Amino acid sequence: MRAEETLRRIGAERPLVHHITNYVTVNLVANTTLSTGALPVMAHAREEVAEMASAASALVINIGTLDSYSVESMLLAGRSANERGIPVVLDPVGAGATALRTATSEKLLAELEVAAVCGNAGEIATLAGLSAEVRGVESLAGDAEAAASEAARVLGVTVAATGETDFVSDGSLTLAVQNGHPLLGRVVGSGCASTAVVGCFAAAGGSGAETVAAALAYFGRAGEVAAEKADGPGTFEPRLLDALAALADEPSRLEDKFEIRERSNE
Amino acid sequence: MRAEETLRRIGAERPLVHHITNYVTVNLVANTTLSTGALPVMAHAREEVAEMASAASALVINIGTLDSYSVESMLLAGRSANERGIPVVLDPVGAGATALRTATSEKLLAELEVAAVCGNAGEIATLAGLSAEVRGVESLAGDAEAAASEAARVLGVTVAATGETDFVSDGSLTLAVQNGHPLLGRVVGSGCASTAVVGCFAAAGGSGAETVAAALAYFGRAGEVAAEKADGPGTFEPRLLDALAALADEPSRLEDKFEIRERSNE
Amino acid sequence: MRAEETLRRIGAERPLVHHITNYVTVNLVANTTLSTGALPVMAHAREEVAEMASAASALVINIGTLDSYSVESMLLAGRSANERGIPVVLDPVGAGATALRTATSEKLLAELEVAAVCGNAGEIATLAGLSAEVRGVESLAGDAEAAASEAARVLGVTVAATGETDFVSDGSLTLAVQNGHPLLGRVVGSGCASTAVVGCFAAAGGSGAETVAAALAYFGRAGEVAAEKADGPGTFEPRLLDALAALADEPSRLEDKFEIRERSNE
Repeated sequence: MRAEETLRRIGAERPLVHHITNYVTVNLVANTTLSTGALPVMAHAREEVAEMASAASALVINIGTLDSYSVESMLLAGRSANERGIPVVLDPVGAGATALRTATSEKLLAELEVAAVCGNAGEIATLAGLSAEVRGVESLAGDAEAAASEAARVLGVTVAATGETDFVSDGSLTLAVQNGHPLLGRVVGSGCASTAVVGCFAAAGGSGAETVAAALAYFGRAGEVAAEKADGPGTFEPRLLDALAALADEPSRLEDKFEIRERSNE
Repeated sequence: MRAEETLRRIGAERPLVHHITNYVTVNLVANTTLSTGALPVMAHAREEVAEMASAASALVINIGTLDSYSVESMLLAGRSANERGIPVVLDPVGAGATALRTATSEKLLAELEVAAVCGNAGEIATLAGLSAEVRGVESLAGDAEAAASEAARVLGVTVAATGETDFVSDGSLTLAVQNGHPLLGRVVGSGCASTAVVGCFAAAGGSGAETVAAALAYFGRAGEVAAEKADGPGTFEPRLLDALAALADEPSRLEDKFEIRERSNE
Repeated sequence: MRAEETLRRIGAERPLVHHITNYVTVNLVANTTLSTGALPVMAHAREEVAEMASAASALVINIGTLDSYSVESMLLAGRSANERGIPVVLDPVGAGATALRTATSEKLLAELEVAAVCGNAGEIATLAGLSAEVRGVESLAGDAEAAASEAARVLGVTVAATGETDFVSDGSLTLAVQNGHPLLGRVVGSGCASTAVVGCFAAAGGSGAETVAAALAYFGRAGEVAAEKADGPGTFEPRLLDALAALADEPSRLEDKFEIRERSNE
């Protein structure tokens, strides 16, 4: 679904997006969700995650500060979302950096029906079985496009490998999103925030490659707008939320600014 | 107690306000407390919450990301606060959204002597036994004034139902606070932050309906000031802290801007 | 090592700094690390902390919202860092405020080889066995210089007691850092953030008193720059990150602005 239409639907439906996420960027993730027009809720208690997920329109799982308690909660919420047919979006933060993160990502993908996976090139390459260099939660090198298309083929889901250019693939179609700004790479959690936007778009428009690419183009475009008034990474972050909200309020300002290109399948 | 006098007392005494709160908005809650002139401390470990609460001048319990561990800590801290006669302020985030949140709110109200309850209309209606529509942690509809007065009557404490207009009731007197700005509704945690301010005011001025209303009017007025220099929800949040601090530093700028009306009891 | 050289090395090496920290200021800590030029990673799960620490160039332990789970993780990560010879920086948040915080600080210092300890005057005085007045996580009074030098002597590590003037001591040499701005005291987490900068500097330049003092002077100088464009504590925080990033990008703008004085040993 196109971004303009999806944003209008989000604004009209105000879908609830349930996040089980890390405590580092949780505030940015919640505000990103709200600025995009959806309603965020964070809940991780085993006693309530299934109930909360079943009331939501999308579930976003981010393993940025996982532990055994939260992984069990992710599985409980994910099964509840699957039963209700609610899309599950996974951000495998740090897959490839520690055994726990790689194994948890694989377990979530094995036990849940995931609609879309969004991560940096190193994380996605790890899940695709390709070699990757991941330092902490940063990807240092690698072919993001190959990682996205191979991971999509292997996992059978829509995959986004985000970076200077974002690559989104469903295994056959691969899209390159060139919207964005270098300051996004200097703010902790811009990747988590972009995954949150994918969760909002999935709640209203599904998780096909075009919708995921539209979500990332909207996010990247907001970064471009935000950078105009920012003096550095600190002032960029509040400007990013301003821009997300302004574009969500008037999606018509958005569409012709997109830089999404279809990649040839050679 | 009036806002001006309470803020002067907070600035002079620098009361410690102990928060057991959620990890989504905890930073905003802490900075709101500090900008209001009090000293925030966050502590949740079972081994120390009773000791920390006994050193504080108010305890604020916010169940935004509760789990069984933190609920036990809330009870331990709350009993310690009760023994010392320190006011306990409760924000029942998401009551009505899941069974766990409703039951936990009721348990805290049953086992602790709570001085004031602050929530959105749906949460307060839930605690009053009225019907409510709560989606995640957002209230979607309902009569906030009726919810506040009925909850105050049923629970026997001061109750604030916050929203476009905030209603504060002690069961007989009900006050309507009209200070505020629509951008407050576009920032995650503005409700948590307003409850934090109520905690600061309770630490210095008690938890009567007039003091709680003064706290919310001060918070709402800061929102009005902040909005003048904000370009959206992102830049609004730091401006809100600036405004809280500026008004706390010079409370005389505040008083005649209040829009607090007494409601007739018909 | 001097600040200019250390910042250049951080920018060239992009060292990974592993933080086990509190959930109140974790986002500021992470963004401070990134703005200083290093790569932050937060991980607390017992299953992965040893592996993550062993991949890092420094480990920063901050007990701001400790509990029994996280303390065990701090020990596991610390032992791993010690085995690999990676510097461990400790911020004993709230030592002196509760028995748990004092005992945990002492336990970490006893069981781990800590390279540097950074705290406010009250926390440092507590660890030095001097009398202190700590309210929550704020230090209210005390002789910061005496606390720093005595703690350094007793503990045998570099110690920084931060405040209006920061005092850094290795037990024989004591340095006073006068860079800074009063707004730093009005933002929750400025102490945690300065400790994070010490961690970044330790990752690239070691943890001698001169390097720790240079880290704090860089941080304080960023505060001075940030204050020029801030209207209060709220707008100061993003400006602080902007200034940290701008100075890290061009360290030559920094050096002659430092106010570091050697204290005589009388």
